[in-house]
Amino acid sequence: MGRLVVAKFGGTSVGSLERIRNVAKRLAKMRDSGDKVVAVVSAMAGETDRLIELAHQVAKKPNERELDVLLTTGEQVSIALLSLCLNDMGYKAKSYTGFQVRILTDSVHGKAKILDIDKERILRDLEEGYIVVVAGFQGIDEHGNLTTLGRGGSDTTAVALAAALGADICEIYTDVPGVFTTDPNICPKARKIKKISYEEMLEMASLGAKVLHTRSVEFAMRYGVPLHVRSSFSDEEGTYVVSEEEIMEKPLVTGVTYDRNTARVSIAGVPDRPGVAAKLFGYLADENVVVDMIVQTVRTDDGLANISFTVPKSEVEKAKDVVEKFRWEVGGEKVDFDDKVAKVSIVGSGMRTHSGIAAKMFSALANEGINIIMISTSEIKISCIIEEKYTELAVRVLHDAFELEKEES
Amino acid sequence: MGRLVVAKFGGTSVGSLERIRNVAKRLAKMRDSGDKVVAVVSAMAGETDRLIELAHQVAKKPNERELDVLLTTGEQVSIALLSLCLNDMGYKAKSYTGFQVRILTDSVHGKAKILDIDKERILRDLEEGYIVVVAGFQGIDEHGNLTTLGRGGSDTTAVALAAALGADICEIYTDVPGVFTTDPNICPKARKIKKISYEEMLEMASLGAKVLHTRSVEFAMRYGVPLHVRSSFSDEEGTYVVSEEEIMEKPLVTGVTYDRNTARVSIAGVPDRPGVAAKLFGYLADENVVVDMIVQTVRTDDGLANISFTVPKSEVEKAKDVVEKFRWEVGGEKVDFDDKVAKVSIVGSGMRTHSGIAAKMFSALANEGINIIMISTSEIKISCIIEEKYTELAVRVLHDAFELEKEES
Repeated sequence: MGRLVVAKFGGTSVGSLERIRNVAKRLAKMRDSGDKVVAVVSAMAGETDRLIELAHQVAKKPNERELDVLLTTGEQVSIALLSLCLNDMGYKAKSYTGFQVRILTDSVHGKAKILDIDKERILRDLEEGYIVVVAGFQGIDEHGNLTTLGRGGSDTTAVALAAALGADICEIYTDVPGVFTTDPNICPKARKIKKISYEEMLEMASLGAKVLHTRSVEFAMRYGVPLHVRSSFSDEEGTYVVSEEEIMEKPLVTGVTYDRNTARVSIAGVPDRPGVAAKLFGYLADENVVVDMIVQTVRTDDGLANISFTVPKSEVEKAKDVVEKFRWEVGGEKVDFDDKVAKVSIVGSGMRTHSGIAAKMFSALANEGINIIMISTSEIKISCIIEEKYTELAVRVLHDAFELEKEES
Repeated sequence: MGRLVVAKFGGTSVGSLERIRNVAKRLAKMRDSGDKVVAVVSAMAGETDRLIELAHQVAKKPNERELDVLLTTGEQVSIALLSLCLNDMGYKAKSYTGFQVRILTDSVHGKAKILDIDKERILRDLEEGYIVVVAGFQGIDEHGNLTTLGRGGSDTTAVALAAALGADICEIYTDVPGVFTTDPNICPKARKIKKISYEEMLEMASLGAKVLHTRSVEFAMRYGVPLHVRSSFSDEEGTYVVSEEEIMEKPLVTGVTYDRNTARVSIAGVPDRPGVAAKLFGYLADENVVVDMIVQTVRTDDGLANISFTVPKSEVEKAKDVVEKFRWEVGGEKVDFDDKVAKVSIVGSGMRTHSGIAAKMFSALANEGINIIMISTSEIKISCIIEEKYTELAVRVLHDAFELEKEES
């Protein structure tokens, strides 16, 4: 009995006619092995940007409904070409746009959310032996308007389809071989992870390991869809993203991530009374400044508080204005901005059940003379703000300390 | 009270972003004048050919269903860009693909026929003041498959929409100013016709005046949709194509057409018995040789028949083979092939009620020493095969003879 496989191919994987042919061969091989195959494809690499550029040439501020009408042609070209290719190779293949499936979304053009998927036609086609090729990134709202799902939308389409169809696996073909313990460009010992939990993947992704879009991982977690992130240029296995229960031997730490795009803001000597922090972060939110880490401590000598937080480097100027306003109203002794910092984090579900991991992280950094400026922890993640110049060193040191180069059992 | 106008713009009219802007301005002007406006647009010039080329690069014999999925992106890009442009100019505009309208067709991919049009949404949008922009050339079949209508399909979409919506006029914007009494390149006195009947237009179009696709004229005639063929590059009025009853003062002859792509085949001395002609033209049909004019006469001296017919020049070789086979089986004294001929025709509804027009045509040609090789007549058309070298002269002579340079009253 073959599996039901949903296989997603991103823009790079279908970036040329030659690559589309390769995708077709891969799908044909799956079909030959007895699998039922649904492919989800993005627009050819560069196509979406080209269309956006066209829109901006005819409209200063493109109407969102019409922009989606334009953009959805990108994947439609991809599904047609892939289907043409498969048919020419002698395989039964049928393409579906988002509305043909139909993938029902809300009406938020440019970042619509999937509400429902009509699976009947696809299941019937699969029964009849068709390879079904579906356009990623797009859907239709209840009024019949075309919508797009926004960044990483094709991943979401694939996962949602896999959930709706009850697929055995959702394979995400991309231009990297899988998810790594850390960035191989910085740490040569970085190793491809065989299995990672949804929760860990979410922390890895949101911390900067840009393989899978956060939304699609959340979706997979919610519906328990097993993911397999792998290279579209080789047959090698990639990384499985599954529920924590399916990972028997949990490593303490699964990966090390870093983020250079961070700046630290500190305000010392702020009155320590209810509503002060709320006021500060309320002002920041009003200005759309995205705050990442927040640390607040109360000084034992004078009872005043120190508040530190981090923002993306590009937001520092906006943050300065907000902080000035805040000090004027509320008070505060000293303000300090530092954009020569970076964030390094370790991620691992094992933290839930093991103690001493934080201590091990801090001493590993200390041993190399790396000062920790801020610390923030969550259930499965510990992040430290350090001087930016130590980023690479810190990543390598932590990778070594937790022996991430060793194969999972 | 404004009119309800369906305005169709071909590939050349939307061939660049600059031209799309011009189309938008024209539609905006109509809207400002109080008209309810529906635009039907084709793919940008060259886009359909580019997509077909892509298809042939991935498939030797492209699957027809999938080819239509690919091709329909062409108009989708046009409608989105035009709508974006209109919205940016401050007008309410909404685009519709064929399936969004929905334009229901049969399932003959590549040359589908329109079966039904759902007009409700468009009428509602028009009531709300929207300029509605519809993709030409495309539809959807009852199973939800995308279809295309084939050559001239956007004209058909426009006419069908105009019929469904009960439009006051269907304007066909093209790259020529209208329909001319004859080819201005050959006859400097050629004049733009103000009004022409559907029937005349059909004879003009099928005889080579390629302004409107035959199918769309038939459609307009069937549903009584008044057409207005005009230039997208000027504000001048073009040619109205209407029912014969609406043309008060019918000229005897409306236009002169010619066709150089014709060759004559004659077989002399064929037995004159039932079934002989049927056999010959049956064989020709089997070989997909398109036959235009057919003339048969019986010789009084020996009772044998002479059969002459014309075919496109490219079919002469195939016709030769067929004729050889025919002579082998049925007999025939002499066969003659001549590809140095051309066809000139005069078209006019006035012929129905006036006699002497044929005689006038023949004598006009004879006065210039132009020999008539074959003659064929229909209700509103008379065609003569002449030596090809006389084509231009014959056209000018006939244009003069029937005083076509004179304005219609």
